[in-house]
Amino acid sequence: MCQLLAMNCNTPTDICFSFEGFAQRGGLTDEHNDGWGISFFEESACRSFHDTLPAAKSPIAKLVKDYPIKAFNVIAHIRMATIGAVELKNTQPYIRELWGQQWVYAHNGDLWDYKFTHSSPAQPIGTSDSEAAFCDLLNELRKLNPVEEPELKQIYNCIKAFSENTAKFGTFNLLLSNGKYIFAHCTTDLCYIIRKAPFSEAHLSDKDISINFSEHTTQKDRVAIIATKPLTDNEQWTVFEKGQLLVFENGELLDLD
Amino acid sequence: MCQLLAMNCNTPTDICFSFEGFAQRGGLTDEHNDGWGISFFEESACRSFHDTLPAAKSPIAKLVKDYPIKAFNVIAHIRMATIGAVELKNTQPYIRELWGQQWVYAHNGDLWDYKFTHSSPAQPIGTSDSEAAFCDLLNELRKLNPVEEPELKQIYNCIKAFSENTAKFGTFNLLLSNGKYIFAHCTTDLCYIIRKAPFSEAHLSDKDISINFSEHTTQKDRVAIIATKPLTDNEQWTVFEKGQLLVFENGELLDLD
Repeated sequence: MCQLLAMNCNTPTDICFSFEGFAQRGGLTDEHNDGWGISFFEESACRSFHDTLPAAKSPIAKLVKDYPIKAFNVIAHIRMATIGAVELKNTQPYIRELWGQQWVYAHNGDLWDYKFTHSSPAQPIGTSDSEAAFCDLLNELRKLNPVEEPELKQIYNCIKAFSENTAKFGTFNLLLSNGKYIFAHCTTDLCYIIRKAPFSEAHLSDKDISINFSEHTTQKDRVAIIATKPLTDNEQWTVFEKGQLLVFENGELLDLD
Repeated sequence: MCQLLAMNCNTPTDICFSFEGFAQRGGLTDEHNDGWGISFFEESACRSFHDTLPAAKSPIAKLVKDYPIKAFNVIAHIRMATIGAVELKNTQPYIRELWGQQWVYAHNGDLWDYKFTHSSPAQPIGTSDSEAAFCDLLNELRKLNPVEEPELKQIYNCIKAFSENTAKFGTFNLLLSNGKYIFAHCTTDLCYIIRKAPFSEAHLSDKDISINFSEHTTQKDRVAIIATKPLTDNEQWTVFEKGQLLVFENGELLDLD
């Protein structure tokens, strides 16, 4: 099993505070020792950092904590390996291009006996159940339109049907982004918080650090944070319902049902 | 215009020494100020680092210089922007998956009036001539076999024909790797060196640093370095012929003609 973290905002925001707490779970406050990764969307481009060392000890994780990269969308993952060896090729998030956009994916849960069903164009590089499901999902999305991004509602319906089917193999807690939206599907554990004015102080659950967001924001800023478990202990997080697929854009929850 | 660097070895090797000199050209000893990137293949997996800051000043470049990642294949690029703004989406190397392998690409030169000719599956994310050519090349390679890696000779012939055609638009100095081979095509500026036993001391051209490779290697190690211009001033580099496409595997030059 693993832990997931995502951020979706209406203004470029750094994730240093949330990642500081999240990275503690990679070997200090929790047992997710088997590598980690993070992807940052800056406009339509995306850059990622991966390491097979525990997040709490990785020099690359230290860089990410110390170097404030401002992004509209971020997806991070820390791993406790179950299916697939501890190797870079099995280290999430996974990234593929579709419709001239980067698509970034992270998955928490085991998909027992999951088999990759498409032959191409997206194919797994590693040996994890998670990446096989990602490639199948991308190939399903591509069927909607092989060249251009279709309507959001079509994308939503495709991800919803895929998630419901894939959850039959086990646990499918999913984070997916194309740099504009965050799609988040919950089988067992996901929660979110939307921070907006009036901003207040937040205190990490995993490390004794607080931040007063009112000192770092403007009145119009909106920031949604999605995580496996709440990252702060003095804010109200909303727990996903089982089987729910939520879509965030510009730090807001969209209504697509 | 830009500068290119690649490494291809028969044993996992760090590129810290070569990258130390190369990064100086990103704002100190040369004028390549418009971002940089590097991709490391560790077995079949690949991880990359990109920044829009000059390589000589980037905190991420400092990490890469200080954190010895051992890899079989590495491709790096420093940019002086001509076509496409200084943005992350135009920062090389570019990466795409094909046949369940990561393909990493870096290009030096301008391709005036180059138009992306395929519609999919590989599509450009940014606005550079370089990425448009990369996507076209991948789509050509995919035509050889949509699912599985074909014979090396077929891949070589495809890249050779594509490079010759693309060079009609301008300068097409190319580095390409799937984690096993480095393909290097020269229109104007590329050179290489193969280091093997007996190893000796090398001194950087761009910074007063030397290394005695005999202290860091075994008798069987072979390391090929390919670069726009020689990185050391006391070794014999071989200059590519114009129009030449060379392929390196396990630190050796293959004969495919």
